[in-house]
Amino acid sequence: MMGARLSLHPMTDDFVPVILSAVDGLDQLGLKVEVDDVSTCLLGTEPAVFEGVRVAFGRAAARGAHVVASATFSAGCPGEPDGDICVPRAEPDTSGGQEGWSAEAYDLPDRIAAQFALYPLGRPDYMDTIYAQIQGVADAGLRVVGRHFCTHLYGPGQDVFDVLRMAFASARTAADHVVMTVTASANSPSPEESA
Amino acid sequence: MMGARLSLHPMTDDFVPVILSAVDGLDQLGLKVEVDDVSTCLLGTEPAVFEGVRVAFGRAAARGAHVVASATFSAGCPGEPDGDICVPRAEPDTSGGQEGWSAEAYDLPDRIAAQFALYPLGRPDYMDTIYAQIQGVADAGLRVVGRHFCTHLYGPGQDVFDVLRMAFASARTAADHVVMTVTASANSPSPEESA
Repeated sequence: MMGARLSLHPMTDDFVPVILSAVDGLDQLGLKVEVDDVSTCLLGTEPAVFEGVRVAFGRAAARGAHVVASATFSAGCPGEPDGDICVPRAEPDTSGGQEGWSAEAYDLPDRIAAQFALYPLGRPDYMDTIYAQIQGVADAGLRVVGRHFCTHLYGPGQDVFDVLRMAFASARTAADHVVMTVTASANSPSPEESA
Repeated sequence: MMGARLSLHPMTDDFVPVILSAVDGLDQLGLKVEVDDVSTCLLGTEPAVFEGVRVAFGRAAARGAHVVASATFSAGCPGEPDGDICVPRAEPDTSGGQEGWSAEAYDLPDRIAAQFALYPLGRPDYMDTIYAQIQGVADAGLRVVGRHFCTHLYGPGQDVFDVLRMAFASARTAADHVVMTVTASANSPSPEESA
């Protein structure tokens, strides 16, 4: 079992319907969805969790306002229940691509920014894992800026989320319990910072 | 050296001046401030970093719109430069309280919600540290709801930030490198969720 805790922040007076429509029906992706007043928790298989976050962020960004998604991905936490706690959908969705994802999971903005950090827990060699992932991301062809406490990516929404997923999966091969935080931004009025 | 990476999300059409005024002049608190298009990084002493986050969140919340602050606090990261990289202010500010903080650091909403998680890195016994902090927070008198991947606090803004600071400081006694993520929400139209 893994999951993500997601907060969507549409910077508009009309933020309520943007958020509600973004997370509407995510349980139909084979996710267990828990909504509270601060965030939405998605629990399920690894592909379904990433699909759910992509769908929600893509929907919110498509409304046009500046939107930021703040997400914490977590896998292997010893304090969480183990095993499958939700029912995967019966048939893979073939409307999207080879992932078995819905077409919505690919409907992401042409350009986004994302700051992310990986936390492999419980291992003295965790910094080696982090450095390896930073290098892996640097090799992926996106614009990458190193910052205090995070790595900052710029690129097409699909590519950025693909790289984030790859980094998380790769870190999981080195540690049982891995957390990744992501702050993804679309439609920002701010120019991309160079350093 | 420690720091926090802070993103402020005022859910209003007029979000730009709310953000800019919230982080304006934080360097005068003895912090090194780095602004990019996704977040603001505050580097400095432990009290100054917490003061800076409180001041920025309080200012944004005082504008009245629903605002969420997403912050990652980090101390002891082996990949970051060590030592003091900024100049503490010459004189403690006595306009606030005994912390030497400005009065603005106490100007927080009467009621906020905050979801937080602690990540003590590099130690096999990290879950013991996390459980101890969750128990410590539960004993602090706030409303506490356990959730997947985080702990959810409700209470007066000052008390919530005091408890977060205490939990972070306490975790640092058990691990050299500690990260804490916080999603703090004010002026939300959503009712407080019970579970």
